[in-house]
Amino acid sequence: MGPGKAELLARIDEAGSISAAGRAMGMSYKRAWSLVEEMNAAFARPVVDSSRGGRQGGGAVLTATGREVLARFRRLERLLETEGADEIAALAALLKPAR
Amino acid sequence: MGPGKAELLARIDEAGSISAAGRAMGMSYKRAWSLVEEMNAAFARPVVDSSRGGRQGGGAVLTATGREVLARFRRLERLLETEGADEIAALAALLKPAR
Repeated sequence: MGPGKAELLARIDEAGSISAAGRAMGMSYKRAWSLVEEMNAAFARPVVDSSRGGRQGGGAVLTATGREVLARFRRLERLLETEGADEIAALAALLKPAR
Repeated sequence: MGPGKAELLARIDEAGSISAAGRAMGMSYKRAWSLVEEMNAAFARPVVDSSRGGRQGGGAVLTATGREVLARFRRLERLLETEGADEIAALAALLKPAR
């Protein structure tokens, strides 16, 4: 899990579709599916169920596991952003300025 | 930066060589160099100096920036491992058991 996969889960939850979630992140359908498959393979239970959801049944929803993974990952991110704010700011200051 | 790049920096610091550091991580010379080049390109100053170090002058050393990046990244990791221990354990419990 990393920030990209977490964002993909959050967007699938919003959009109810893997392709729409990927598109919103500038990602190909193939890439979005491949990331979902990696996550589904890594966890003991799938994080995304692509057989349900959507009016035409072509959508995707987060499973209970997917919701839990996303929530816990977000809590870790918040911990870094609050308690680790000084370290993150110092690291960011060492990066090449964005053009 | 992620755990893999941080470990590579730590091992370059120990080994005084990019190829030896990569080898210790089961990584090809090409892959190790490519990760170093990515980091050197991302930061305003290089993190690894490959023109110095080593008895034959073929080695590599961390720059002051490289040391600072590694130290700050390690502090963020320690924050996650201590304050985030419960979340990390819960996420790990959701993963497929290693075979």
